[in-house]
Amino acid sequence: MTRVAVLGAKGRMGSESVRAINAADGLEVVAEIDLGDSLDQVTAAGAEVALDFTQPHVALDNVLWCIEHGVDVVVGTSGFDDERIAAVRSALGDSPASGVLVVPNFSIGAILMMRFAATAAPFFESVEVIEMHHPDKVDAPSGTAVRTAELIAASRREAGSPGLPDATTTDPDGARGAKIDGIPVHSVRARGFVASQQVLMGGAGEEFTIRHDSHDRTSFMPGVVAAVRGAGSRPGLTVGLDDVLGL
Amino acid sequence: MTRVAVLGAKGRMGSESVRAINAADGLEVVAEIDLGDSLDQVTAAGAEVALDFTQPHVALDNVLWCIEHGVDVVVGTSGFDDERIAAVRSALGDSPASGVLVVPNFSIGAILMMRFAATAAPFFESVEVIEMHHPDKVDAPSGTAVRTAELIAASRREAGSPGLPDATTTDPDGARGAKIDGIPVHSVRARGFVASQQVLMGGAGEEFTIRHDSHDRTSFMPGVVAAVRGAGSRPGLTVGLDDVLGL
Amino acid sequence: MTRVAVLGAKGRMGSESVRAINAADGLEVVAEIDLGDSLDQVTAAGAEVALDFTQPHVALDNVLWCIEHGVDVVVGTSGFDDERIAAVRSALGDSPASGVLVVPNFSIGAILMMRFAATAAPFFESVEVIEMHHPDKVDAPSGTAVRTAELIAASRREAGSPGLPDATTTDPDGARGAKIDGIPVHSVRARGFVASQQVLMGGAGEEFTIRHDSHDRTSFMPGVVAAVRGAGSRPGLTVGLDDVLGL
Amino acid sequence: MTRVAVLGAKGRMGSESVRAINAADGLEVVAEIDLGDSLDQVTAAGAEVALDFTQPHVALDNVLWCIEHGVDVVVGTSGFDDERIAAVRSALGDSPASGVLVVPNFSIGAILMMRFAATAAPFFESVEVIEMHHPDKVDAPSGTAVRTAELIAASRREAGSPGLPDATTTDPDGARGAKIDGIPVHSVRARGFVASQQVLMGGAGEEFTIRHDSHDRTSFMPGVVAAVRGAGSRPGLTVGLDDVLGL
Repeated sequence: MTRVAVLGAKGRMGSESVRAINAADGLEVVAEIDLGDSLDQVTAAGAEVALDFTQPHVALDNVLWCIEHGVDVVVGTSGFDDERIAAVRSALGDSPASGVLVVPNFSIGAILMMRFAATAAPFFESVEVIEMHHPDKVDAPSGTAVRTAELIAASRREAGSPGLPDATTTDPDGARGAKIDGIPVHSVRARGFVASQQVLMGGAGEEFTIRHDSHDRTSFMPGVVAAVRGAGSRPGLTVGLDDVLGL
Repeated sequence: MTRVAVLGAKGRMGSESVRAINAADGLEVVAEIDLGDSLDQVTAAGAEVALDFTQPHVALDNVLWCIEHGVDVVVGTSGFDDERIAAVRSALGDSPASGVLVVPNFSIGAILMMRFAATAAPFFESVEVIEMHHPDKVDAPSGTAVRTAELIAASRREAGSPGLPDATTTDPDGARGAKIDGIPVHSVRARGFVASQQVLMGGAGEEFTIRHDSHDRTSFMPGVVAAVRGAGSRPGLTVGLDDVLGL
Repeated sequence: MTRVAVLGAKGRMGSESVRAINAADGLEVVAEIDLGDSLDQVTAAGAEVALDFTQPHVALDNVLWCIEHGVDVVVGTSGFDDERIAAVRSALGDSPASGVLVVPNFSIGAILMMRFAATAAPFFESVEVIEMHHPDKVDAPSGTAVRTAELIAASRREAGSPGLPDATTTDPDGARGAKIDGIPVHSVRARGFVASQQVLMGGAGEEFTIRHDSHDRTSFMPGVVAAVRGAGSRPGLTVGLDDVLGL
Repeated sequence: MTRVAVLGAKGRMGSESVRAINAADGLEVVAEIDLGDSLDQVTAAGAEVALDFTQPHVALDNVLWCIEHGVDVVVGTSGFDDERIAAVRSALGDSPASGVLVVPNFSIGAILMMRFAATAAPFFESVEVIEMHHPDKVDAPSGTAVRTAELIAASRREAGSPGLPDATTTDPDGARGAKIDGIPVHSVRARGFVASQQVLMGGAGEEFTIRHDSHDRTSFMPGVVAAVRGAGSRPGLTVGLDDVLGL
């Protein structure tokens, strides 16, 4: 049994993660820590891995504390930016004992979609992204769609792919979305969707589509469990789940 | 056997239509007329219905000639605008003997999609249109998508539907497409598509999608055959296939 | 304000309906009745419409009681079979004062899908149904898919459509599903789906698809609200939501 | 310029390939050989690579002749079975000078679909395959769908994935399709489709779909061109395009 501490255990992702970790083979939650609780509980409970779903400014302190106390840590907190990642790298030093796994996206489906889209895009003449989210979302395009388009564009650049064919001469003003590195991203906002995305590719006489639909945050739990399982065997800093998933 | 004359018989739609009409039960092509041929062949061959796939300026003269000679006529020529339709109505007069059926779109699939989208749209909170065409198309959104959005907007207005929910605050510049009467239309241009469209509707906990994919002009032939069959029994002017299809 | 009693108010559909009715313009729940409660509360609270989400054998008694007491009633209880419907018809007699609306399916999306599929099917050479549900479902195909296939088959028979083309000579044993009145229904069982269905139609050079995805029972609430609103103005027995929806 | 001979140049795949090769940078067709022509034209024209789209029994002799004459060869002929492949391996011997590339499937889209499905399948609880072909096809499931299911099953076995969850107790007789190595494959036969396939995967709260639609044989040409380009740099026997595509 790997002993796990969850920081931010009462939040939405934290509480869902507590359930998922306790349901997973070989893992158990030994400390549920939230606002006002002392981190000493992590070591007192004998946790080997900490999972952080707090706030960006708190998360960095939590990670540094874990490094100091020899506890591996998975950072799921959103907004853990490059500056914070640099601070972690510096704290780990040259011969790190702890593993720190920073995960910007726990959705294995989204990770596979991005990976496959980047691999496939150079083989097709055209590629566009359509992302579909609930209408309460304030930003368009979504972060995942922007990242997908960037990866597609990078992959095509590296393969020497030509620009996308497009004879459009009249295009009034666009609906919702953006061109990211030359890749059109269409943003649909409709009740009924939570977080969906499709990547459409096309060549003469064929279409190739990758689509991911996420309906609730339980879809992140396989990624959370994989991260907690993988953190211990990776001393030093790792960003993203790809390596843990063997991709 | 209904005897049919095809005007513009050597063009792409004309020649495909000759094949389709000859393959249809109860119809036969008795005159194939193209540039430089005399319309007298229509009556000489005993044609009861003429199908016009010529050019807008020629088509009007053809229709007037058919009315004068008591031949029913189906106008499939694109660009046969309101002014020309008014001229036909005036020529038919109060007690028309001939039937003139003007068909802006022979795709039964597209007609059903528009009809169903307009019927369904007031029952859902959100609706957006995504149309996908080959990248050599110069205009965006497509004519069918604009018409679909207009019909959806009119149907929602009539039903007293509220505006579409949309909390978007950051939306850089749009990808390709437009808002038509408040309905977002996203235009994808990708090799592999000929003419495809989906209408996405959503309410709490559900999505409803209507999609039509057309891969080549054979998909217009059932509409052409239905129009030729229906023209004779409709004295006077009819615009659109809906009535012929019993919709 | 229309005053509504909900019978079976503590069940999953009942409690969700209480919330939805109270949130709807012009409706309010005045009695929440469950196991062991007396129906007298319905009249004591001045309810004009009762909504029944109980059990088939209880529901019939409830309906008969409502007829006797001049309360309109919507029956949402599943398993309210033809025999029970006959008993209701008999109780209503020739000049019914009450309206009884029996609703086998509150999903407006599913109703539209069935309606559109039946309308469109005669216009295409081929049609097949694919339904996708969670893997804990015990029956295949789903009731909605069977009903859809029956409606499609009836509509094609009436239109004189030929049988579906199918040259298959080797087909080992089928995956999951059935042929219903000659219409192939494929049943997918996969985690992540709740209740989804698509109807695929095809003709030369084109495909036409209608798809409905339902993710949770909130998607039934617009149908529940429409039924409660419509029950009062329909004396006598009505089966199905189509008429209430103006379809 | 790489000089290419096409064997079976008048067939459907052969003639399309002649066009595609001549349109590709750095390749030119120097010999078009069909029934009754002598293979000596291959060497007389100075061809460096031969592309074979003939018949299985002829293809083996063609390959052996090419090996003998130091010409690299791509075998696109369907039905080039394991026995013939063994004969080629034996003829190549231990220090092969020629490269022989046997390609059972030139569709890069289909190859990517199979590759991605096998990679993704262990990450999801459920997976099913739906393949959609024209109704004149005699076999169900399609060869590509069977191969996809086998690859998915192998990948899940290797990853130690549990069996697919399925609570179905009533399942009359199936529609069209099969279970292949435990993976349900649904076969749709509908006019309008040429060759399409989707792989549906699902986990709690999410769905992941990979779909490929092929509308005509031009979609095979990028694979043909890649094969012809790659054959020369791979002495010995290679089966499948994966390696040439860098997958």
